Amino acid sequence: MPPEPIDPIRPTDDEARALARRLLSEARHAALGVIEPETGGPFVTRVAVGWDGGAALVLVSTLSQHTRALRAEPASSLLLGEPGPRGDPLTHPRLTLLTRAEPADKAVHRASWLAQHPKAGLYYDFADFLMLRLAVRSAFLNGGFGKAFRLRPEDLRPPAGAA
Amino acid sequence: MPPEPIDPIRPTDDEARALARRLLSEARHAALGVIEPETGGPFVTRVAVGWDGGAALVLVSTLSQHTRALRAEPASSLLLGEPGPRGDPLTHPRLTLLTRAEPADKAVHRASWLAQHPKAGLYYDFADFLMLRLAVRSAFLNGGFGKAFRLRPEDLRPPAGAA
Repeated sequence: MPPEPIDPIRPTDDEARALARRLLSEARHAALGVIEPETGGPFVTRVAVGWDGGAALVLVSTLSQHTRALRAEPASSLLLGEPGPRGDPLTHPRLTLLTRAEPADKAVHRASWLAQHPKAGLYYDFADFLMLRLAVRSAFLNGGFGKAFRLRPEDLRPPAGAA
Repeated sequence: MPPEPIDPIRPTDDEARALARRLLSEARHAALGVIEPETGGPFVTRVAVGWDGGAALVLVSTLSQHTRALRAEPASSLLLGEPGPRGDPLTHPRLTLLTRAEPADKAVHRASWLAQHPKAGLYYDFADFLMLRLAVRSAFLNGGFGKAFRLRPEDLRPPAGAA
């Protein structure tokens, strides 16, 4: 019998890419990790997310701690893929994105954001809400025990020819 | 009319403390934020959690990226409080813990862990799974829009006289 592999990361295949893209397209909120300016340690909060081609979009309040943190340090991470009400959270697939925050044009994304987040119409136009683009540097897909994959930004884009 | 307060953090009260303790006691999994050794940026994954008095417990694989990261840098963060299937994720209360990872004795916590995570019996005793204690340095409760509180570790402990 061959020895067990030590590296639990599998070679990326089309099934992994399709699963990652499905998680991205279905996500309406995510856990956002930022670097807390005071301590330099991680800080995780929940944010609403959208998806724009190769990047995540987040609508955040300038009063929030994560926004202040991202302005000081754009390195960030998103965890997507919420378990269903009865699903096992550790076998439910989830996707970690390693991202870098940059400003986005809130006016440009208004219609698509409100289509996915209708309740955000109550505060979308408030001056203290801004949109950030979280450009993906790399990604890590956990499809359940023993199904881990490392993905590149291009793995998250729809395949050529797809709608 | 008085001007709107700029700091959105409210003074901590007993209702906030009780809500935070409820989120802790109900949580079975959480989003864990760590510092990725390669980049120094945040990395968010999902882990199973337990609660032991003043600290969170996590059962992690030594093969996982978050375990490797925590061994290099114990500063970490947990986001607790999953929205229900139809709840609005941004009005559902959630709790961010700022934590520091340290070794825990897996044998000591076996019974209580398996009572809360029965499926973990399949791998709890594997040598490549270890338990870490995430000691709380501070916490941040978001009870919904306009209901943000900063909590100290002692706010998360049951009040004197409680069971």
